[in-house]
Amino acid sequence: MNYILLPAENFSIDSAKINAVPQINHVHHVLTAKVGESLKIGELGGNLGTAIIDDMTPDCIQLREVKLTMPPPAKLDLTVILALPRPKVLRRLIMDMTAIGVRDIILINSYRTQKSYWQSPMLERLDEFVLEGLQQGIDTIAPRISLQKRFKSFVEDELPRLVTNRAIVAHPYGSQSFAQYLQKQYLPKPETLALPSLVFIGAEGGWIEYEIEMLTAQGCEAVHMGPRILRTEAAVNAILGQWLS
Amino acid sequence: MNYILLPAENFSIDSAKINAVPQINHVHHVLTAKVGESLKIGELGGNLGTAIIDDMTPDCIQLREVKLTMPPPAKLDLTVILALPRPKVLRRLIMDMTAIGVRDIILINSYRTQKSYWQSPMLERLDEFVLEGLQQGIDTIAPRISLQKRFKSFVEDELPRLVTNRAIVAHPYGSQSFAQYLQKQYLPKPETLALPSLVFIGAEGGWIEYEIEMLTAQGCEAVHMGPRILRTEAAVNAILGQWLS
Repeated sequence: MNYILLPAENFSIDSAKINAVPQINHVHHVLTAKVGESLKIGELGGNLGTAIIDDMTPDCIQLREVKLTMPPPAKLDLTVILALPRPKVLRRLIMDMTAIGVRDIILINSYRTQKSYWQSPMLERLDEFVLEGLQQGIDTIAPRISLQKRFKSFVEDELPRLVTNRAIVAHPYGSQSFAQYLQKQYLPKPETLALPSLVFIGAEGGWIEYEIEMLTAQGCEAVHMGPRILRTEAAVNAILGQWLS
Repeated sequence: MNYILLPAENFSIDSAKINAVPQINHVHHVLTAKVGESLKIGELGGNLGTAIIDDMTPDCIQLREVKLTMPPPAKLDLTVILALPRPKVLRRLIMDMTAIGVRDIILINSYRTQKSYWQSPMLERLDEFVLEGLQQGIDTIAPRISLQKRFKSFVEDELPRLVTNRAIVAHPYGSQSFAQYLQKQYLPKPETLALPSLVFIGAEGGWIEYEIEMLTAQGCEAVHMGPRILRTEAAVNAILGQWLS
């Protein structure tokens, strides 16, 4: 938690209050901050800045001299379409994609997604994971997240509207590497214009050939990141790291 | 576990045996493989290939027709020097760096490394985490791992021998981005020659200015990956992803 993000209703003129338990615990036990000290805070959907602790009780921290002058960093021009992973790794994946600045996240069904994953109570907690990601990545704008339980109808009916720019599907058995794909765009890597704006990433086991064929039929190119198979979390960060450099 | 790696002593002519509990459980409960079926296996330090299950008991799986013909993928020409992280994340970090193909890993003390981390029993289990990483990444060659409890003497006495090529330190407050650094090397990104061969990565909280000064005095350049602060695990994968594309 590098910043404490508060909803708009917690602010009034130049004061604010922290009343969420995880944030109160963070101030007490991690920051061990005292009355009169400064905290890094932000407004969800707004700016980042600082405030002074005015008063502390076990269930509320009052802040004064709230100064929110720093706008959040720009989002990546990127939609990630991720095969719904095991619930156990969902929290960290949503946190990481949020922290890294992905603008749109679509969780989609895939052949290798177990049906039970769609019943997981973790799917009710996405807002919480997004908040953790924003507080980690020092951002205030939540990514848009949607769920797509039907792969085929999404790819045939919705995807064509989304593929307005370059789109790729990460696939260890793709015939070209990420770097080879970028070179074809005739712009060197540092020009972010050359980066795709939509990327499909599989979860454990990746995509099956039928899925790859459906995606390539809609204009997505299959690209690999070398011969090694990474955990879903590691793969997502290694792929999204390409948008950071 | 994409491949099951066995030590050399488990092989004899064209047969082999699996006798480690996690691997036996994997064959029984994840692969649900039966006698007569084929398994993907490899020899630690050797080749990758297949074998047929000849016999299964609760504590040993006998294999026949062992064919190890595929060499492991090349290692990355890369030394990662990582500030010793919280024990809780050490397992996944070692796994991920191994799976991604880092050749040398040095775990080092830093100002923000808590002293207690060096007493963690997790440090006795590095071989186990490496095995998990190799089985994930489909490799057979373990990275070399060493521990350096003294930052200053390491940087002054050992680092000059290691900095034979480009070296960087990941630092959110560096004055240049990774892409800007690569451009200075006068080679476009896809030429892997332009990539550094040594990277320092901080753990939670990153490096302090004194550490950055000591590293830059030895020829390491500070580079950032944008304005966002990532979890150690996410940062390591996002940075190392640059070596994959």
